Amino acid sequence: MVKVEKQKVVGVLGGMGPLATVDLYRKIIEETPATYDQEHVHVIIESNPAVPDRTAALLAGGEDPTPLLLSGAQRLAAAGADFIVVPCNTAHAFLPRIASDVDIPLISMIDETAKAVVAELPGSVVGILATAGTIWTRLYQDAFERVGLSSLVPDEAGQARVTEAIAGVKAGQTGPEQTALVQATAAELVERGAQSLIVACTELPLILTQAHVTVPLFDPTRILARAAVANALGSAEPAREGAVRR
Amino acid sequence: MVKVEKQKVVGVLGGMGPLATVDLYRKIIEETPATYDQEHVHVIIESNPAVPDRTAALLAGGEDPTPLLLSGAQRLAAAGADFIVVPCNTAHAFLPRIASDVDIPLISMIDETAKAVVAELPGSVVGILATAGTIWTRLYQDAFERVGLSSLVPDEAGQARVTEAIAGVKAGQTGPEQTALVQATAAELVERGAQSLIVACTELPLILTQAHVTVPLFDPTRILARAAVANALGSAEPAREGAVRR
Repeated sequence: MVKVEKQKVVGVLGGMGPLATVDLYRKIIEETPATYDQEHVHVIIESNPAVPDRTAALLAGGEDPTPLLLSGAQRLAAAGADFIVVPCNTAHAFLPRIASDVDIPLISMIDETAKAVVAELPGSVVGILATAGTIWTRLYQDAFERVGLSSLVPDEAGQARVTEAIAGVKAGQTGPEQTALVQATAAELVERGAQSLIVACTELPLILTQAHVTVPLFDPTRILARAAVANALGSAEPAREGAVRR
Repeated sequence: MVKVEKQKVVGVLGGMGPLATVDLYRKIIEETPATYDQEHVHVIIESNPAVPDRTAALLAGGEDPTPLLLSGAQRLAAAGADFIVVPCNTAHAFLPRIASDVDIPLISMIDETAKAVVAELPGSVVGILATAGTIWTRLYQDAFERVGLSSLVPDEAGQARVTEAIAGVKAGQTGPEQTALVQATAAELVERGAQSLIVACTELPLILTQAHVTVPLFDPTRILARAAVANALGSAEPAREGAVRR
């Protein structure tokens, strides 16, 4: 098969954590209309789990992940990627700092998610399940506000359960115990008025799915996968339009 | 965390097919002794599904995959990979042609599998489930012979079922229909005297597991994942020792 010229190469800046990168990669494949190998999109993945913990850097003065994020992004550009997606919500807090030093656009999972939610449920209240770092930096709250959506975040005890569940997934535990922890917090958010939920840490879709909650559940990893495929196949607006603000 | 100096970067030359690459990547993570992100190994994946069909090239005069395999391997080396693993058994027929043009070692899934099977079941008869291309090039038959193992391959009808199942997986179908096709051929091999089986096409572990057969089942993808982790962590013999013969 002759490869269509305008197809773009997807660069995945991953490893944060590794299983979340597997999840995005699998969803990119699922979201590609293909019946044999050669119809799939070209993906280059840089999975360097040594990138320092993003939440620790944001909340506890931990080591800055920016240098390794930048070198990973530059590595992807050098390897031939045409644009970059980052399957770690919390890492998005650092992307504006590297965007100007990378020659290819970064597509924001946060902005793509806000666009997807407002398209389906305009004017609604979204409950946010995420790391403490993502919540504290207001990545999603601000993105939702920009498109006219309200949002709710867990109280301290609810957030502690989510944090514990995420740590479990990062250690390879994806069983019912982890699900129960997040499910309890999700139920609290719905009780407080959330009309939909987002699993805004890339570890969370591995343990919480639509079947576990009573309102529509949005999966930013799935939304990012769709955006990546659309950009790769040339069926989306140019990547730079939806890219991380520099 | 300070990264241990001697850790090596795993290069995965994948995309053949994409789901098989996801499977290897997941198994690399599973085989790594880690409880948080930063303990996982650094992996770079080049997943270019445009690599022409390997079996078609071997059996039907199809387009030669060697140029794209070579450029992918060179891309990985340039991006910083220290050694390369290829999650496609059939592609191993082409690896000796590219090994001398790549500056880093390639670890052979075929040789690693032969070593693993002989260590567990010396002198036994292995049934081979694989693409027609892998069977025809005798990749596994010869590797098993070198370590003193006998092997059995499916008859024509049995191979046709395996080929059909693999095509299904490449199109995203991983359901019970695909399993039944391979399971029937596996049962025939056992009836003819196979004392173990290998799922020697990277699509096959997605649909055939130990629960589906009555003899020990070896998964070359899992064996390759273990070899990759051992090499990355410096706990294996140097990669070049088990590398593709040049």
